[in-house]
Amino acid sequence: KGDAAAGEQKAAMCVACHGAAGKVSVPLYPNLAGQNEAYLEHSLQAYKKGGRSGGQAEIMKAYVSGLSDEDISNLAAYYAAMKP
Amino acid sequence: KGDAAAGEQKAAMCVACHGAAGKVSVPLYPNLAGQNEAYLEHSLQAYKKGGRSGGQAEIMKAYVSGLSDEDISNLAAYYAAMKP
Repeated sequence: KGDAAAGEQKAAMCVACHGAAGKVSVPLYPNLAGQNEAYLEHSLQAYKKGGRSGGQAEIMKAYVSGLSDEDISNLAAYYAAMKP
Repeated sequence: KGDAAAGEQKAAMCVACHGAAGKVSVPLYPNLAGQNEAYLEHSLQAYKKGGRSGGQAEIMKAYVSGLSDEDISNLAAYYAAMKP
């Protein structure tokens, strides 16, 4: 299970699209607040490993490329803990 | 914009994993309740068109293969309208 406080430190690059409170500012993007932690971790890993293409997948791939497995786990905990 | 009432008629196959109230019963799956409509539509289309692989993507692909563009639009409206 990830460390939400550590995840917050890595979330600065997420807020432009996913919002400071995990609610999107852009209609095509998903809200993250309160999303299931295991799913968030899975989807970030999927972007990192090339399991998603099309739409904004290339952008997400670029963003997550510099994240460690621990960073991903912490980010998942951070957004899962937010009130939806 | 989709028709939420029509979407509800197509959602019977979704509830086993995504829950009757759009909240997951299985940790690896995403909650759908209150998710952004445009994103839900995009992601269902991505599964249908092969833009996602790995994890449960093959399962989702099988489920959405029988859905029309209108069905997908309606399902997106249905889940987006649910309280998260």
